[in-house]
Amino acid sequence: MTTRRFTNEQIDRLLRPKSVAVIGASDRHGALGCTLLNNLVQYKFKGDIYPVNPKRDELQGLKVYKGPQELPHGVDCAVLAIPRPFVVDTVRALAENGCGAVVIYAAGFSEAGEEGAKDQAELARISEEHGIIIEGPNCLGCTNYVEGIPLTFVETNMKQPGPNDRAVGVASQSGALAAVLATTLHPRGCYVSTSVSTGNEAASGVEDYVEWLVDDPATHVIAMYVENLRNPQAFIAAARRARAAGKPIVMLHPGKSDKAQESAATHTGAMAGDYALMKAKLSREGIIFADTLEELADIATIAVTCESLPGANMAVLGESGALRGLAFDIAEDIGLDLIDLNDENSPKIRAVLPDFVPVSNPTDITAIGLSEPEIYTNLLRALLEDDRIGSVVASIIQSDPITSKIKFPPIQKALEGGDLGKPLVFAGVDEGANVPQEYIDGLASAGIPYFRSTERAYRAIARLADLSKRDLSDNSVAPVTLAGLSDESGVIPEYKAKALLAPAGIAFPESKFAATAEEAASAAEAIGYPVVMKAQAAALGHKSDAGGVILNLKSREDVAEAFERMFQNVANYDASIALDGVLVEKMGRMGTEMIVGAKSDPQWGPVVLAGFGGVTAEILKDVKLFTPDMGKEQVVAGLLSLKQAPILKGYRGSPALDVEALADLIVQMGAVMTGNPGIREIDLNPVIVHPKGEGVVALDALMLVD
Amino acid sequence: MTTRRFTNEQIDRLLRPKSVAVIGASDRHGALGCTLLNNLVQYKFKGDIYPVNPKRDELQGLKVYKGPQELPHGVDCAVLAIPRPFVVDTVRALAENGCGAVVIYAAGFSEAGEEGAKDQAELARISEEHGIIIEGPNCLGCTNYVEGIPLTFVETNMKQPGPNDRAVGVASQSGALAAVLATTLHPRGCYVSTSVSTGNEAASGVEDYVEWLVDDPATHVIAMYVENLRNPQAFIAAARRARAAGKPIVMLHPGKSDKAQESAATHTGAMAGDYALMKAKLSREGIIFADTLEELADIATIAVTCESLPGANMAVLGESGALRGLAFDIAEDIGLDLIDLNDENSPKIRAVLPDFVPVSNPTDITAIGLSEPEIYTNLLRALLEDDRIGSVVASIIQSDPITSKIKFPPIQKALEGGDLGKPLVFAGVDEGANVPQEYIDGLASAGIPYFRSTERAYRAIARLADLSKRDLSDNSVAPVTLAGLSDESGVIPEYKAKALLAPAGIAFPESKFAATAEEAASAAEAIGYPVVMKAQAAALGHKSDAGGVILNLKSREDVAEAFERMFQNVANYDASIALDGVLVEKMGRMGTEMIVGAKSDPQWGPVVLAGFGGVTAEILKDVKLFTPDMGKEQVVAGLLSLKQAPILKGYRGSPALDVEALADLIVQMGAVMTGNPGIREIDLNPVIVHPKGEGVVALDALMLVD
Repeated sequence: MTTRRFTNEQIDRLLRPKSVAVIGASDRHGALGCTLLNNLVQYKFKGDIYPVNPKRDELQGLKVYKGPQELPHGVDCAVLAIPRPFVVDTVRALAENGCGAVVIYAAGFSEAGEEGAKDQAELARISEEHGIIIEGPNCLGCTNYVEGIPLTFVETNMKQPGPNDRAVGVASQSGALAAVLATTLHPRGCYVSTSVSTGNEAASGVEDYVEWLVDDPATHVIAMYVENLRNPQAFIAAARRARAAGKPIVMLHPGKSDKAQESAATHTGAMAGDYALMKAKLSREGIIFADTLEELADIATIAVTCESLPGANMAVLGESGALRGLAFDIAEDIGLDLIDLNDENSPKIRAVLPDFVPVSNPTDITAIGLSEPEIYTNLLRALLEDDRIGSVVASIIQSDPITSKIKFPPIQKALEGGDLGKPLVFAGVDEGANVPQEYIDGLASAGIPYFRSTERAYRAIARLADLSKRDLSDNSVAPVTLAGLSDESGVIPEYKAKALLAPAGIAFPESKFAATAEEAASAAEAIGYPVVMKAQAAALGHKSDAGGVILNLKSREDVAEAFERMFQNVANYDASIALDGVLVEKMGRMGTEMIVGAKSDPQWGPVVLAGFGGVTAEILKDVKLFTPDMGKEQVVAGLLSLKQAPILKGYRGSPALDVEALADLIVQMGAVMTGNPGIREIDLNPVIVHPKGEGVVALDALMLVD
Repeated sequence: MTTRRFTNEQIDRLLRPKSVAVIGASDRHGALGCTLLNNLVQYKFKGDIYPVNPKRDELQGLKVYKGPQELPHGVDCAVLAIPRPFVVDTVRALAENGCGAVVIYAAGFSEAGEEGAKDQAELARISEEHGIIIEGPNCLGCTNYVEGIPLTFVETNMKQPGPNDRAVGVASQSGALAAVLATTLHPRGCYVSTSVSTGNEAASGVEDYVEWLVDDPATHVIAMYVENLRNPQAFIAAARRARAAGKPIVMLHPGKSDKAQESAATHTGAMAGDYALMKAKLSREGIIFADTLEELADIATIAVTCESLPGANMAVLGESGALRGLAFDIAEDIGLDLIDLNDENSPKIRAVLPDFVPVSNPTDITAIGLSEPEIYTNLLRALLEDDRIGSVVASIIQSDPITSKIKFPPIQKALEGGDLGKPLVFAGVDEGANVPQEYIDGLASAGIPYFRSTERAYRAIARLADLSKRDLSDNSVAPVTLAGLSDESGVIPEYKAKALLAPAGIAFPESKFAATAEEAASAAEAIGYPVVMKAQAAALGHKSDAGGVILNLKSREDVAEAFERMFQNVANYDASIALDGVLVEKMGRMGTEMIVGAKSDPQWGPVVLAGFGGVTAEILKDVKLFTPDMGKEQVVAGLLSLKQAPILKGYRGSPALDVEALADLIVQMGAVMTGNPGIREIDLNPVIVHPKGEGVVALDALMLVD
């Protein structure tokens, strides 16, 4: 595991500075150096403030320094509110003067072309040499809400968490979204501990700040906006520590669509990575992914307000039958499990309901709560105490202040006994109803998040419940080293790839390589008819297109004739391709065609892809990614979540297929990838999956080696 | 087209009554008859109020009547706040006393079992006999906000639209959701005109009230919650009049999921219809479907605030690069088209931007708007004036009151020249930011809807833009009558179905029916080899399972042998099935397997289904529904929106397929269904689609006839 680049003490100089220099301090309204200085003074920064401006002697009653060299030695943090051309020299001077950290607002670095990239590289070098923390360039700064330190030029609401409050730490590659998140969370009664925006990440990235947030006692949940993790292994190490510390990480990462990936590439000057691979890897580290900004805030709201995260199986207290159908529809849409509750299977819930209200989920208590409000407390408590249930939602028609006064207190009371290992979430049905803020605050103080609308609550719960359903245990098997691989490089043709992979336990049909027609015929005799013959050459990418695959050869003569024909076909297709020879292979039974592939990303490491093949493979993209730490059971679960999984389970009279053997193959491919870091890609396509107990066999194999 | 069941004058007596009787009036706090009477008095109902209660002489200073018989003759509307057992007799007495309309709150009718259903039928009969309007039973009443008449026991905020205000009319089968919708719309600066909840719909349904709302000058948009349209053709007639009147109808209809359909069945005592069929039919009538309660309110908000509905191609003014990637991701997810704007193709937009801001979509104007707020007006106006663009969103970081003061007025100003044929929508990025209400009201008054978050605005726009993309023109062809159909009933076996359908232009392979082995052999000789033989009997549902399909017969002897074998197979499979004989059919070329089916719903009429067949047909459900009024072009567009449409367009070297011939077949099936109302179902499975220009052929045919 990668070691940390910076210690907490180093980052403390940025996020808990005892002295701050404002380079480019000003009193010109609207200037960054003016707003920043105002922020520090207004929020009564307790340390020393050193304004720097060659043209001024005094600002806000503070002595002004002429330049970075004249500052006292060892200022904790300097914030650069100066134009881009002066940045590099200033940072160098500050580093040499013992400054611990700098914040660089200016843009125009790696995102702006070659010269900017060169300057950014120099900033990285200075950080490396002096151990100085560099936030940015091209960032909006950072704010420590706990200690009241706003190192940002954004107007900031310094809502301060108390020592017993749970709070969200924010690490964002976008300054705008860091600010947006605080603005959104605060009115919901949620606190932010410290928020950092990292911009171009010249020397330190979100992963470094996450390490710090994990150790920050004021932080309980970490919310992130990320366009490109520049140091995946360091982030994974941080994510593991976060999980061990019980601090969930919620991440919003655009890039699902191709256009978003392009946009990220231009926005921060960093190439977007492979989104699906990133998501597969980080899902295994317990990261919760939000798809939208709404979801990011909503998930963070639940995670920070409730002590326990949702498990699977949601139960809902509702007040109208109409909401039942709507709940079923959206639950199916977003993959949320509504547990089946009825009079027979739920006697304790039955006991707290009036006779005319059947136990169900959502339970429709009708308008009875208006006259018998204790039903809210009793039913919610019964649901919270039920071990089968992973989260509880009160989906309430709020109407007006009078109705709120009847309904909110008994709902709040349901959680007064303390956390019961699952969240209770309040979700309004009539969004925008006039609910006095005191009731919303009351819920928050009791650990009950308030959602204005029900569907938003459902979506956030679905994301969190998904985490609870992931089996994150590490079931890595021993890496498998392929003998003879070191002799190879570039594209490895089928016959060699099969020879390399077969000893690792990958099943292929019996086959022999043949360089002459005579050898081919003998091979066929030895293997037994019918056979298939396949042209072999590293340069031959699409054998079938070139007439390089001839099926169903049934005699010595067939084989000899096919050999000559194949060489002719390939020569006609592309005269520059010289065949090594042919592979003569036993023709096997037909079966369901699947694809298994593996690839190794230089930064993220290996991942194995598996899914349905055939004509529509690329149209339906019915595939899953598996990481090498997943064991057979985890892989089977993944395979059974494919869209066409009914085919694997046995469908309309066709037998169940050998999913276990397919899972073994996938696990084995993971072991091969971890054991041979030089392999860039392996493609097994198609892999024929036979009925249960009868195994799988890969008909083709291609490898790409560094 | 169905004629209306009730005139506007009849419904006026419910929704614009000049006199109201409160049956069960009371002064007991919490009693329905108390709240209702309070509502009428508090909101100063201008007509006569007649409280009815045998035990009281005076309530709220009004004379109390002893019973319905003692009321003056011809009261417009009586609201029944009395227990269920007294309802039917009271309604009868009221009807006989010339009362024009009743509202029945009580539940316990068709949703509660046989006796309730009988009573409900009696209510329907009374309505039929006397022409009295019956709202409910099992409803929450109605409210006319324009004239200030709340005939409901729900506490009501009587926000009254002025004569120039646009307003939403509400027709809902759920009383709770009718109330919820008003609570949600009002704080957004939107008005409700009249809201009706219909409950069990004993005598009048949502379709009757929609007719009234179409003619109501105070209503501009109609929002509906529906679980089951009991009178589809009447609703379709109303929907057509709404479209002609330029009043969009937004509908929330649970039932996408099976569980929701079950829930609807128990909730209002009505069997849920076929959701997909309903949606296919109503989409053709211009109905806009919301998937969630959030969407229902959001779509209604845009439709009622803006004079013009969104067209295709949205343009966004944004203030952060981070939001670009997020916009691309969600746009792809929800099928929203972001138009491609750049410096080259958009000179007029280029002209209003500073040099360092490239034209793009979303445009990232950075924080420049803070110092140069006129950019909001200029850019938004340039986008609104651009004919390529169908809707414009200002996605704004609102931050705080100071920032709002800078940004909101120039955005509002962009629409001051009046509507430009497309909506301008304000969408906050930092949901929950402290924005003074005056700015939100200012936007609303200028016709700009305010959304707290951006994704919600995008979703609502996507739904509305979808409507603009539908070609709703009626391209019905002449119905085709099948000769000889009247002789048939029940399941019609393949050979007869093909004989009936072939003259209508449906292409089948050449075939002959044969009742003996000798006839079969002669048939094969006449047709030419190879042939396929298929067992024929109405009772034989799954021929293949029974060994009733034998392929690739190549000689007279093959055929004769197969004939005997087939009879034996079927006898082994099910001895009770007596074969009519066999169908001997020319074996044709292979091709892409699709499915074409048609069914006729007794209430909704016919619909044709088409999609991809083969093994995974039922797993992938990659099908579309077509109505008989759709012409070839509309059908082609639908087919090309199938998930596996790339196969139709020509994919990875395989040729483009004959989509036009497939569309012709679908149109023709529609004509057959309209021409033969006795046909319940037709299944053509598989239909082989050949390359472009080479047609389609249906290999099998099954019909079900009344």
